[in-house]
Amino acid sequence: MFEKEYDVIVVGAGHAGAEAAAAAANLGSRTLLVTMNLQTIGQMSCNPAMGGIAKGQIVREIDALGGYSGVVSDKSAIQFKMLNKSKGPAMWSPRTQNDRMRFAEEWRMALEDTPNVDFYQEMVSGLLVEKGRAVGVKTSLGLEIRSKSVVLTNGTFLNGLIHIGDKQFGGGRAGEKAATGITEQLLQLGFESGRMKTGTPPRVDGRSLDYSLMIPQPGDEVPEKFSYTDTKPLSVQRDCYMTHTSALVHDLLKEGFDRSPMFNGRIKSLGPRYCPSIEDKINRFADKDSHQLFVEPEGWNTVEVYVNGFSTSLPEDVQFKALRSVKGFENVKFFRPGYAIEYDYFPPTQLKHTLETKLINNLYFAGQINGTTGYEEAASQGLMAGINAHLKINGKDDFILKRDEAYIGVLIDDLITKGTEEPYRMFTSRAEYRTLLRQDNADLRLTPKSFEIGLATEDRLKKMEEKALKSNAFVQFFRDTSFKPEDINTILEELDSSKVKQPGKMFKVFSRPRVTMDHMLKLEEVSSYVTENNLDREVLEQAEIQVKYSGYIAKEKNNADKLQRLENIKIPDNFDYSKLKSLSYEAREKLKSIRPVTISQASRISGVSPSDISVLLVYMGR
Amino acid sequence: MFEKEYDVIVVGAGHAGAEAAAAAANLGSRTLLVTMNLQTIGQMSCNPAMGGIAKGQIVREIDALGGYSGVVSDKSAIQFKMLNKSKGPAMWSPRTQNDRMRFAEEWRMALEDTPNVDFYQEMVSGLLVEKGRAVGVKTSLGLEIRSKSVVLTNGTFLNGLIHIGDKQFGGGRAGEKAATGITEQLLQLGFESGRMKTGTPPRVDGRSLDYSLMIPQPGDEVPEKFSYTDTKPLSVQRDCYMTHTSALVHDLLKEGFDRSPMFNGRIKSLGPRYCPSIEDKINRFADKDSHQLFVEPEGWNTVEVYVNGFSTSLPEDVQFKALRSVKGFENVKFFRPGYAIEYDYFPPTQLKHTLETKLINNLYFAGQINGTTGYEEAASQGLMAGINAHLKINGKDDFILKRDEAYIGVLIDDLITKGTEEPYRMFTSRAEYRTLLRQDNADLRLTPKSFEIGLATEDRLKKMEEKALKSNAFVQFFRDTSFKPEDINTILEELDSSKVKQPGKMFKVFSRPRVTMDHMLKLEEVSSYVTENNLDREVLEQAEIQVKYSGYIAKEKNNADKLQRLENIKIPDNFDYSKLKSLSYEAREKLKSIRPVTISQASRISGVSPSDISVLLVYMGR
Repeated sequence: MFEKEYDVIVVGAGHAGAEAAAAAANLGSRTLLVTMNLQTIGQMSCNPAMGGIAKGQIVREIDALGGYSGVVSDKSAIQFKMLNKSKGPAMWSPRTQNDRMRFAEEWRMALEDTPNVDFYQEMVSGLLVEKGRAVGVKTSLGLEIRSKSVVLTNGTFLNGLIHIGDKQFGGGRAGEKAATGITEQLLQLGFESGRMKTGTPPRVDGRSLDYSLMIPQPGDEVPEKFSYTDTKPLSVQRDCYMTHTSALVHDLLKEGFDRSPMFNGRIKSLGPRYCPSIEDKINRFADKDSHQLFVEPEGWNTVEVYVNGFSTSLPEDVQFKALRSVKGFENVKFFRPGYAIEYDYFPPTQLKHTLETKLINNLYFAGQINGTTGYEEAASQGLMAGINAHLKINGKDDFILKRDEAYIGVLIDDLITKGTEEPYRMFTSRAEYRTLLRQDNADLRLTPKSFEIGLATEDRLKKMEEKALKSNAFVQFFRDTSFKPEDINTILEELDSSKVKQPGKMFKVFSRPRVTMDHMLKLEEVSSYVTENNLDREVLEQAEIQVKYSGYIAKEKNNADKLQRLENIKIPDNFDYSKLKSLSYEAREKLKSIRPVTISQASRISGVSPSDISVLLVYMGR
Repeated sequence: MFEKEYDVIVVGAGHAGAEAAAAAANLGSRTLLVTMNLQTIGQMSCNPAMGGIAKGQIVREIDALGGYSGVVSDKSAIQFKMLNKSKGPAMWSPRTQNDRMRFAEEWRMALEDTPNVDFYQEMVSGLLVEKGRAVGVKTSLGLEIRSKSVVLTNGTFLNGLIHIGDKQFGGGRAGEKAATGITEQLLQLGFESGRMKTGTPPRVDGRSLDYSLMIPQPGDEVPEKFSYTDTKPLSVQRDCYMTHTSALVHDLLKEGFDRSPMFNGRIKSLGPRYCPSIEDKINRFADKDSHQLFVEPEGWNTVEVYVNGFSTSLPEDVQFKALRSVKGFENVKFFRPGYAIEYDYFPPTQLKHTLETKLINNLYFAGQINGTTGYEEAASQGLMAGINAHLKINGKDDFILKRDEAYIGVLIDDLITKGTEEPYRMFTSRAEYRTLLRQDNADLRLTPKSFEIGLATEDRLKKMEEKALKSNAFVQFFRDTSFKPEDINTILEELDSSKVKQPGKMFKVFSRPRVTMDHMLKLEEVSSYVTENNLDREVLEQAEIQVKYSGYIAKEKNNADKLQRLENIKIPDNFDYSKLKSLSYEAREKLKSIRPVTISQASRISGVSPSDISVLLVYMGR
């Protein structure tokens, strides 16, 4: 029924699976996407939004690499916001609110338009493994489909168990079946698995809300977008709204705490720390008697609304009673209650940097199966797994992004080096070089690398090169061009900045704190340079960032280069740690289990101390 | 969590449930629509098309009554065809191919835009019954939601069991869970249930087909539409394609017959006779070595394709091997195999004409739960159940359509009078007055009735009245206006029809077999009448039908009126048939169980002979 042998089989068609299939196929691999339901491809299981702090940067990186998440998000967006715009550019984080149905539809169409992607609807119940190598999958009907590699992206479906109050039932999402068989087989193969938990708030009827009692949260006045390609920014947007819980709401919720699966011991696994349930927030922050709630429309036309911040697994009557006491929700009607879901994951220290498992060759894991949370984290892993699955079967080098190259590099390195005991999400603080890993330069950082392996198109590369060329030339223009004191002083006076007496290079004045590109454009020479060279918003922004943050960027680049030296000291593949007696016991165990590839990676393993690193360096002859 | 008491709760949101909820709510009932998955409202479970022979008439009737199926079909259509256009107007049957995703989306939007409809996502696991009356539902979470009446539209979900070859598993549709609990409770309440079977063909990848080997099946050159409202006819359409099975294909399929659940006894229930599986066709029509297959696109953009005519529950490898031998399918790729599904239904003789159950007050059944097959049959039942649920709780008269008023009347009367042992679908031949029940006059027949109960809007009524007024006047014009022989003879000559010598009324000539409106329009007086009175296509068509078929229509009207006399002889509610000794045993049993409301209905019960009717008539004093 199928190709004699696919190159890549991707199991699951959420954010991770969809990116994995697209990437492998675009690189030329004959790819099969198997999902339990072809009508739920690219489903947003939780909130109808993409991006946000650190996550928006990841979407930009996925786009720069030639993944689809940015394009799909742009096409299905109903609102755009650049978060943290008042902070430095390292913190700027794009976010869209999305039409849930449209998002899924755009994903499906994007995949259907990708040559080399075949589709099949059925539950995968196991893997075909031969000689320590994944060679296909088994389905619930008993079909065997062969392939050169397999990417598992099972999300919350593996033995998924839904909890609402003291009721619990199997399911991968509300109204959908759980998947069984895979965990059991992987355990037999020697994998270690764990349970994680996540949750989602009630969905409610927007017609039952009084928005006049809430605070509108409009999108940006001049909305941007995720993709570096020619997707269109929004011309119309939909508002979100903000409201708050209160002491009364908290008291009402507390009434259900004895029936909460979180508190009565029924749920033992850990949920996402930074996206906690409302009962968790009340419990952990007992001194706060109010929490923000964001009321997010589910699309352009639907009346369905997502109550962000009210994730809960309390009994449905408690959810309801409490939500009715929230301002604007006095008459709320439920479409469905919130719930928690427990599912199997596999500690990601069992993976290589390529997301291939250490135990079974040509088997890759991506997304929640690796203990992460978030659409963006899942999508980026899917993309990297899809790329590497393709490269390996074609005998090509691994495609690994370093920590100073991409948030995606940080994410994967953190996962495989440190593992995670609770759902892992990305933060800017996890990146030691975040001034380098900005949303504005993801294309400059990553598109050439992706073009080199054959994923990013030449169009993308050319667009990026033109942006680089133009912005570099514009920065050079500021370095080379002198100002006339009388011109610049008008501006400086306005800004309450000390005047200059001598002529000098524009770069220096532009570097001053409050001086922006808008000010510089008031200078005749600058504005005519812009017009003559036909510079667009993106180039202006890029040049401005490079001028104003040149100091920080240079410093961080320097630090990264220094650490790169440790990164270059490879540890041999089968290095025998047991012969290094002077390593601490913990370090030796951890090193044996994680098997870092470089001294730098070894240094990031928790339990491996600087003195352990010295021992290693001495042994390696440094 | 819910209204203290809804007026109507509708369980299930397929064609039946969606129409039921819309109708009850539009009449003013506070309505709750409960479904296992809010993302599958208005799902086309089988082929992506609405209407067809006799079914298209039903969609027109639903529309004329103010239901939504026509509007939703028009808005999501990708192709329109008026079937049987070469036959008399009683046979004309509109059909659309639809975009499956868009159809569901239009339904969801239509319901969201209907005031009085609330939504809730959960499985209903039982009914609340008090004093022989339905007063709400219980959900799988244990919630009790109260209402004045309940409409069950469970489709294929009640204990749904999916079969593919020798594998079987629970499910309401591929990838969706079955529903449990309701059947068990209804049996306890004294209902009788049965099992039925239906099936669906494989869905395949359109990119893998060679359309050049198939015969294109385009839509009409001038596409019409279902709704009498101002929906737009299509300006662009997508083609379907036709291909054929062959002796080879049949041989390949036969190889799997020993593993077919249809033939090895695993499936005992009956499937739809006129929509049989391919293995059934091969078996029953052993002399035919070819069957038609229609290749139907699933939407505007998707590559997914529906293989109409290849419904099957043979093992998936057999399906695949055989389909690969069909012309154009040499390289076919499966999205998913075909399957059969068995589900519970309740013999519809347990219902009244209002679709209320005889056993439990204020409990209504609509759709496949009544043993029917087809979207249109289901939708029309939902509409009638929703209307009657509303009317009853408001103490108003039942809304019943008679057999000479609507296909919907025929459908319901057949179901409750004769019952059905196999999935019931509508045919023109089931209607004894099909010349009256045309697709062109559904508005004239039904909109005034629906307006009277408050469902059809005044706009609809006005539009209908204008059409009636204008077409009647136009017919009168033909009756009143004389032709000049020299004008008319040019036309008659062309048609090879005998010339006239004397002047006469236009009506008479127009009645001749080959003379059409187009011919009449060549007469200066006719065309200027049309221009002056601003007559549109619909009015021209209506007038033409009324002139050309006036004889048939009058005769059938006369027959209907005669039989109406029997319809007017009511049988008292608790009539004691046991005291009529001269009734045959069979008739007495059937009459006791079905309890017909009129002598006419009694006469349609199988096993009740004309002499039994005479006995009844004598007793009633006629």
